[in-house]
Amino acid sequence: MASSVTPTPLLKDELDIVIPTIRNLDFLEMWRPFFQPYHLIIVQDGDPSKVIKVPEGFDYELYNRNDINRILGPKSSCISFKDSACRCFGYMVSKKKYIFTIDDDCFVAKDPSGNDINALEQHIKNLLSPSTPFFFNTLYDPYREGADFVRGYPFSLREGVPTAVSHGLWLNIPDYDAPTQLVKPRERNTRFVDAVLTIPKGTLFPMCGMNLAFDRELIGPAMYFGLMGDGQPIGRYDDMWAGWCIKVICDHLGLGVKTGLPYIWHSKASNPFVNLKKEYKGIYWQEELIPFFQAATLPKECTTVQSCYKELSKQVKAKLGKVDDYFNKLADAMLTWIEAWDELNPSKQLAKGK
Amino acid sequence: MASSVTPTPLLKDELDIVIPTIRNLDFLEMWRPFFQPYHLIIVQDGDPSKVIKVPEGFDYELYNRNDINRILGPKSSCISFKDSACRCFGYMVSKKKYIFTIDDDCFVAKDPSGNDINALEQHIKNLLSPSTPFFFNTLYDPYREGADFVRGYPFSLREGVPTAVSHGLWLNIPDYDAPTQLVKPRERNTRFVDAVLTIPKGTLFPMCGMNLAFDRELIGPAMYFGLMGDGQPIGRYDDMWAGWCIKVICDHLGLGVKTGLPYIWHSKASNPFVNLKKEYKGIYWQEELIPFFQAATLPKECTTVQSCYKELSKQVKAKLGKVDDYFNKLADAMLTWIEAWDELNPSKQLAKGK
Repeated sequence: MASSVTPTPLLKDELDIVIPTIRNLDFLEMWRPFFQPYHLIIVQDGDPSKVIKVPEGFDYELYNRNDINRILGPKSSCISFKDSACRCFGYMVSKKKYIFTIDDDCFVAKDPSGNDINALEQHIKNLLSPSTPFFFNTLYDPYREGADFVRGYPFSLREGVPTAVSHGLWLNIPDYDAPTQLVKPRERNTRFVDAVLTIPKGTLFPMCGMNLAFDRELIGPAMYFGLMGDGQPIGRYDDMWAGWCIKVICDHLGLGVKTGLPYIWHSKASNPFVNLKKEYKGIYWQEELIPFFQAATLPKECTTVQSCYKELSKQVKAKLGKVDDYFNKLADAMLTWIEAWDELNPSKQLAKGK
Repeated sequence: MASSVTPTPLLKDELDIVIPTIRNLDFLEMWRPFFQPYHLIIVQDGDPSKVIKVPEGFDYELYNRNDINRILGPKSSCISFKDSACRCFGYMVSKKKYIFTIDDDCFVAKDPSGNDINALEQHIKNLLSPSTPFFFNTLYDPYREGADFVRGYPFSLREGVPTAVSHGLWLNIPDYDAPTQLVKPRERNTRFVDAVLTIPKGTLFPMCGMNLAFDRELIGPAMYFGLMGDGQPIGRYDDMWAGWCIKVICDHLGLGVKTGLPYIWHSKASNPFVNLKKEYKGIYWQEELIPFFQAATLPKECTTVQSCYKELSKQVKAKLGKVDDYFNKLADAMLTWIEAWDELNPSKQLAKGK
């Protein structure tokens, strides 16, 4: 089926690619065939005086810490510094409906036939097809070609719900915590699982920010990556925090979260000793955080992402403040984030009748 | 790593293979390398005077309707006739810890490398490794070789829980309902998804009896395939019914249900017109059954499968009796089944202190 007509890339004008980085973006060379048609939002972490080189031909805007401080003023306190959590600033300044975010140590993976995987295209497919959070389909995503709902799947649930989040996976270096990295330094993920599935309602999952796409209009204001890194007691829990928050809110609002395809090639394990230092408080705090999020319920009156998120912030303060004072700070930052979001996205706020 | 020593097949003396059938079991020829070491329990459906031929060399016991009537007496009313639901009689008469059940139109599938898949071995692996129903692991079964728990997975949950059920899938003819069969007569499942995963707590799934294994000691008394076929208003909901019941009880008792690998090759689609006749009441009843099972909770005092199942029968009568009188009959049959189970498995009953 060779054709000389190049099809227009999917959602070309409706999607931004957000990349947090501290270095030159040479990794984009490998992604050129897939990313070049899209607009990039680069969030430069660390020293703002450093110049980040972006390969020729990409359409991008770049924000360093000075830009963030200038744009958000005192509200910039909610954006983390020296941690990839800073990427969520990119979600906030985007004006598009969809976001794809990827780490700069992630490369194009190959499928079992040896073909390059267009990760972005797969994320878009995931986001544009419904999710099925209320009942498990044993043949995985029923909307994929060659699949459907199996016998016994209630017909009333076959329309599905809108998909808010698409969580992709990683070949080569798996996304392990520091203890697992230390115990299994040589483990590589070589298993290509050809599946996309909806994470059922009521089930939490560890959302990794390395290869992630979402619908800003449906869930954007909840995609806050928290307070991490410089001046904070933890790191490497930014995406986890966002994942727990968005899942509770998606469940409440009847939105779907998918995980599975696409894979990217994760090139290099981060230093497990450094990671351990960043993670160790999170490792024991999460034993209290998970039951908190599992039990969290939102009142019916919360019908917008913003109102859900504010309510969640209240519950964080009430129930997690006693775990550590950090969670009081985090709860405040969640509110600051929402204020900043609404300031930068005023029409959306009005559109939702708030 | 060639070796002249044939390893002892896994669980050789602890597992029975249950096969419901109405025809000669030629299909066993293809399974010979994998099944021959095991004991088979064949449940002959339909005309008991018909002689079912079993290929040479297999160790088996065979029960026809006369045997079922003789062994269970009046309680035989709980075992369906002219429906593969009759297979559950085999679960009851087995004296082993594990059951694998397979349909006689299921053949050995090949993995993507072209190797024969030893479905039984994979089921055993699934059953012998824990499940993780309380939190989703994005790299699927964390106990598989080359996999683990990902970053953000609470350490307190990494021991998992015992696995009670392993639900396998099908290449070639997918397990579709009659309407989907009619709409997509040519659809074939060609996607080999190399994954096993735990169905999260609180999530129901459509359990297919075609390729299924379970731990009799953990969940056996709940693996009742209901009243289907001859004299009943529905068919083809036997495994679905069992699946909803076992899932609610596994969730209550803290047991795991896995789905995914292994695949078998499902050779032939059943007649969609015949299926439609069997299914049509189920198709609308299930719209009430699913919410019932989703909302079902069992009291703390129910600590054995038997007591859970009796309680569920009570709730079926109370809440589904009004959907159709059939559910009153089914609720009674659930109790009869438990009585028959305990009669044939007296020591287990004592062992559980009932």
